[in-house]
Amino acid sequence: MIHAGIIGATGYTGLELLRLGSAHPDLTINVVTSRSEQGRAVQEFFPALRGHTDLAFSAPDDKSLFECDVVFFATPNGSAMQKAPELLEAGVKVIDLSADFRLKDASEWKTWYGQDHACPGLLPGAVYGLPELNRGVIRNAELVANPGCYPTAVILGLLPLLRAQAVDAGSLIADAKSGASGAGRKLEMSNLFSEAAESFKAYGVAGHRHLPEIRQALEALAGQPVDLTFAPHLVPMIRGLHASIYAILSADTDVQSLFEQCYADEPFVDVLPPGSYPDTRGVRGTNLCRIAVHRPGGGRRVVVLSVIDNLVKGAAGQALQNMNLMFGLPETRGLTLTALSP
Amino acid sequence: MIHAGIIGATGYTGLELLRLGSAHPDLTINVVTSRSEQGRAVQEFFPALRGHTDLAFSAPDDKSLFECDVVFFATPNGSAMQKAPELLEAGVKVIDLSADFRLKDASEWKTWYGQDHACPGLLPGAVYGLPELNRGVIRNAELVANPGCYPTAVILGLLPLLRAQAVDAGSLIADAKSGASGAGRKLEMSNLFSEAAESFKAYGVAGHRHLPEIRQALEALAGQPVDLTFAPHLVPMIRGLHASIYAILSADTDVQSLFEQCYADEPFVDVLPPGSYPDTRGVRGTNLCRIAVHRPGGGRRVVVLSVIDNLVKGAAGQALQNMNLMFGLPETRGLTLTALSP
Amino acid sequence: MIHAGIIGATGYTGLELLRLGSAHPDLTINVVTSRSEQGRAVQEFFPALRGHTDLAFSAPDDKSLFECDVVFFATPNGSAMQKAPELLEAGVKVIDLSADFRLKDASEWKTWYGQDHACPGLLPGAVYGLPELNRGVIRNAELVANPGCYPTAVILGLLPLLRAQAVDAGSLIADAKSGASGAGRKLEMSNLFSEAAESFKAYGVAGHRHLPEIRQALEALAGQPVDLTFAPHLVPMIRGLHASIYAILSADTDVQSLFEQCYADEPFVDVLPPGSYPDTRGVRGTNLCRIAVHRPGGGRRVVVLSVIDNLVKGAAGQALQNMNLMFGLPETRGLTLTALSP
Amino acid sequence: MIHAGIIGATGYTGLELLRLGSAHPDLTINVVTSRSEQGRAVQEFFPALRGHTDLAFSAPDDKSLFECDVVFFATPNGSAMQKAPELLEAGVKVIDLSADFRLKDASEWKTWYGQDHACPGLLPGAVYGLPELNRGVIRNAELVANPGCYPTAVILGLLPLLRAQAVDAGSLIADAKSGASGAGRKLEMSNLFSEAAESFKAYGVAGHRHLPEIRQALEALAGQPVDLTFAPHLVPMIRGLHASIYAILSADTDVQSLFEQCYADEPFVDVLPPGSYPDTRGVRGTNLCRIAVHRPGGGRRVVVLSVIDNLVKGAAGQALQNMNLMFGLPETRGLTLTALSP
Repeated sequence: MIHAGIIGATGYTGLELLRLGSAHPDLTINVVTSRSEQGRAVQEFFPALRGHTDLAFSAPDDKSLFECDVVFFATPNGSAMQKAPELLEAGVKVIDLSADFRLKDASEWKTWYGQDHACPGLLPGAVYGLPELNRGVIRNAELVANPGCYPTAVILGLLPLLRAQAVDAGSLIADAKSGASGAGRKLEMSNLFSEAAESFKAYGVAGHRHLPEIRQALEALAGQPVDLTFAPHLVPMIRGLHASIYAILSADTDVQSLFEQCYADEPFVDVLPPGSYPDTRGVRGTNLCRIAVHRPGGGRRVVVLSVIDNLVKGAAGQALQNMNLMFGLPETRGLTLTALSP
Repeated sequence: MIHAGIIGATGYTGLELLRLGSAHPDLTINVVTSRSEQGRAVQEFFPALRGHTDLAFSAPDDKSLFECDVVFFATPNGSAMQKAPELLEAGVKVIDLSADFRLKDASEWKTWYGQDHACPGLLPGAVYGLPELNRGVIRNAELVANPGCYPTAVILGLLPLLRAQAVDAGSLIADAKSGASGAGRKLEMSNLFSEAAESFKAYGVAGHRHLPEIRQALEALAGQPVDLTFAPHLVPMIRGLHASIYAILSADTDVQSLFEQCYADEPFVDVLPPGSYPDTRGVRGTNLCRIAVHRPGGGRRVVVLSVIDNLVKGAAGQALQNMNLMFGLPETRGLTLTALSP
Repeated sequence: MIHAGIIGATGYTGLELLRLGSAHPDLTINVVTSRSEQGRAVQEFFPALRGHTDLAFSAPDDKSLFECDVVFFATPNGSAMQKAPELLEAGVKVIDLSADFRLKDASEWKTWYGQDHACPGLLPGAVYGLPELNRGVIRNAELVANPGCYPTAVILGLLPLLRAQAVDAGSLIADAKSGASGAGRKLEMSNLFSEAAESFKAYGVAGHRHLPEIRQALEALAGQPVDLTFAPHLVPMIRGLHASIYAILSADTDVQSLFEQCYADEPFVDVLPPGSYPDTRGVRGTNLCRIAVHRPGGGRRVVVLSVIDNLVKGAAGQALQNMNLMFGLPETRGLTLTALSP
Repeated sequence: MIHAGIIGATGYTGLELLRLGSAHPDLTINVVTSRSEQGRAVQEFFPALRGHTDLAFSAPDDKSLFECDVVFFATPNGSAMQKAPELLEAGVKVIDLSADFRLKDASEWKTWYGQDHACPGLLPGAVYGLPELNRGVIRNAELVANPGCYPTAVILGLLPLLRAQAVDAGSLIADAKSGASGAGRKLEMSNLFSEAAESFKAYGVAGHRHLPEIRQALEALAGQPVDLTFAPHLVPMIRGLHASIYAILSADTDVQSLFEQCYADEPFVDVLPPGSYPDTRGVRGTNLCRIAVHRPGGGRRVVVLSVIDNLVKGAAGQALQNMNLMFGLPETRGLTLTALSP
């Protein structure tokens, strides 16, 4: 039995860790902290969890965190880097769902997150927790940087093409669309129902924090600089993320086979038959990434459609997948969920 | 291991049986039939089930239905009554999710469903499958009539009051609201996204087929005729059903205690603390009925708020709960799900 | 040409006044104020208004308010009562869309709004601006209290019955449902898209500020105390309000004729044919209240279904209807809109 | 006063023509036909129009169509080409909102629409009704092919770039997203609320009928073949269309100025300030196309964001804009609507 703690569990990522964690047979969540809600019963704060947990939120400095086998950070950016070092020193494994340990370059981190990194010395050892990319090193990692939701869908959509050198690395476009829960449980005007419903818009085209994260992974895959245009959009739905990815093939390639072979053994990447269109509801509540590949008119342009549930494969589910790897469990333990459809 | 068949599994109720069934540790679904889709792989028809089933739809007269321990009817009204008799004769237990065996009176059935009942002789022995009402007889039933979604929420909301003779049986109003999946997977204009989204309306106030079903149960509980006004409404959401129930107390009663005591041992009825408001998303994907009781201004009027997921406790989940009872399994087996929230 | 000002125009009510006002041929909006946005161009703050206004927000103490013929308060409760007196003294007519002047009894106002009323002396002269109730006095009013959205739909649904003494005043129930814009443009957790979408819940059953407002009007109509149970609910849509109203007839009455005759000359109340169900999208963007009346099973219970657009007939449209009356214009001027459907 | 007829007015395009037409001061709609609904009152079929029209649907061969000044076809593809010739011969102007006259090449039409064109001789004289492209010839046209919704947003998004030869015509990508009303009022499974809500998916990437229509217009603008990848997606909202367009600049260009100058005199194209993101709700119910231009990182990649209301500028509003031009009216007559927001 793995004993875990969750720091900052009052947002959607924390809630999803609690939902998935409560169904994981080898995991016990012993402590959840919240600065604002300490003392309050978790099931009172999240009525959806009534009957599934007896925990109460404790203070962020709760000593019992140090008795955990693993601690998940579901905190806003900038918080994990303050607290992770002492946990790691105490031998506690850390899985950070925020962005603090995703970029290898501390100065680039500062550029995008607007503050100095608190522990740049930990960055080289932090493992980017995308199992399809880094399964081997994740198994031995002490500190895992859980990927962002957009990066998960986009990197998985491009991995087979870049690894096979099949596309022009200077031609990449990711037109991505996310449900509103991707913005978190934040009191911002644009998150209001009456602002977000019955509407559609782009944002962050001029520069989004997930861009350097995606680029870093793609460049490692391609072994060369990549030119990526990344355009996120907000969809009037709660969960779901759809990336439509455009690239130009370097040569005539059977892209369907390429994807099928690349992901043949992956438990959480599902390559659809030719001509398919994955929908986000088909993966709602699951840890799956579903992918379809198109070559319109049989030309050199390849269009990859990649969907995930932003809160599962894009956050909490992937964190548990990483945990399974770090603790030698079967990778799919606790994650064999059927989508909630309709 | 229970071996089961599903007849008519191309609608939302059938899909939900497959979703829940795939997670039930003591259940194997051996056969699913569909007149229109026979021969087609189930996971091709329902992409949400990819990787969770190897079944293909077979013909409605598939002989292997007779080798099942239990057969679920997820067919339109009027179909189960044709087919159930031969299955029962062959010793196969039947759980009918349609309305064919819900009313005890064949002539009332004809009034509401517009045709003669095909096997009125089976009606006396059919058990109305609301475990909170009929747990004992369900255990020994061969033929269970699974309740409708509205009846489930309304009857559970009134059961403690009527059983305790606490309210005037001539004063009952159920103002109920359902998500669009309650209307099924039917090609009707009113079910189109552009017709149902961003709108709200009542329907069936003049007479809805769930009215006699609810009344039959309430009168059995009350031991006298009841006067019930039932007004269903359509909510622009997929899943979820909310009944707001109004009654007049016969005497000053501690209704909170009444509900808490009545449902103290019920695994799937959750009475909220005083002053609460259950929301449908809190039970999304689960077999729970959540209830709050109010007495505005402390007067004689009692307002009961009762929510369920119409496809789970209102259909497929309750069917599995009944199956658990019929086969001597723990009642909650396979049904301890956490709500998908947000 | 009527010259108008709007105080507090950064919420949905203010935005709707600007939308409708820009299409009104006899109205010029000269000044809009906002404490937080002063100096900012209105069309920059509300991109939906680009090209329709050259106004910029000015300070709340903008002197040009005193040069207006009429000033609309679209402020939070408690603000208009501070500012209205000096405007009235200066001969400016005031239409208050907040709740400050709706209740006649200052102590009841304090009970529900939690503070002393700042100018109780104005309450007797303030006219409750529901034209179907008070058309005559509105014409000569200097200070109009524009009704709340729930009260508009509920009072119009009960007016014919109470005026004709046709129902038992002790039997009234209003089960009302509103879209999310009814809660205003407020940064509250329950207003977030991910909290409100795909869910349905009741709130305020124990006591809602619109209850005393409705009761006051109903008692004036009935000429006796009424017993009203009021249960508001939140619908996952932006605009629209649906009241389902239940009462018991005192005698056998042709309720369809009663409603048709009562509203025969009303330009903004549309009584539907027998057996109809009004939907909120049918009045989206319009100043209409649409009503259907049912007597299920032909019994003594009458069910009235009343729908409005909460931002138009429930707020800004009704305010302009009142303005038309106060300035001797045809009542429908600027308000003959066709619903946006789908 | 222009006297008009509408053929096939039971879908969303027809309904929108009726909504907008009822507010147009110089237009009287004299006849609306429907094969399925003949004899039925329009306001009974479309309750949203109650009080706005006294018309009843007449038969498709209604002779009074020949007495109209203009006839709008709001029919499914393949219908207008059967009926338009005789109307044109009789001197009636025709505006076809279907696809029958959009492609100049009858064989390409056959390829995409699966049947022989019924009157290829009319194709050369049919004018593609995008005023920003063809204003001059529209004024004198007898037969206008009203553009599709996707083509309107995409062509307007690329027009300034192609006309100025500013981009590589071999590099074009249009990632477009439409609300569900774009699919029409059709009884198809994918249009059901429970299928389309809370989900997002692409479709038609392998080939969509709007692709040749867009390509034809772009090639005329560019004066050379273009390579366009077109990927439409379905958004869980009713109205709204958002095109995200990607191209590579041929040279360093001030794209903001290019767009502003190109559209400086266009009444219905609104170029937003640098750094903006248009949302579909900002144009809901209006005839506007709103555009923002981005160059992420200041590179050669240009990203154009173009939004319309698919039923207005993408269909019925543009049809009336064309009518205004054809009859010498001010182009904006009847179309100066403010967006319905929120």
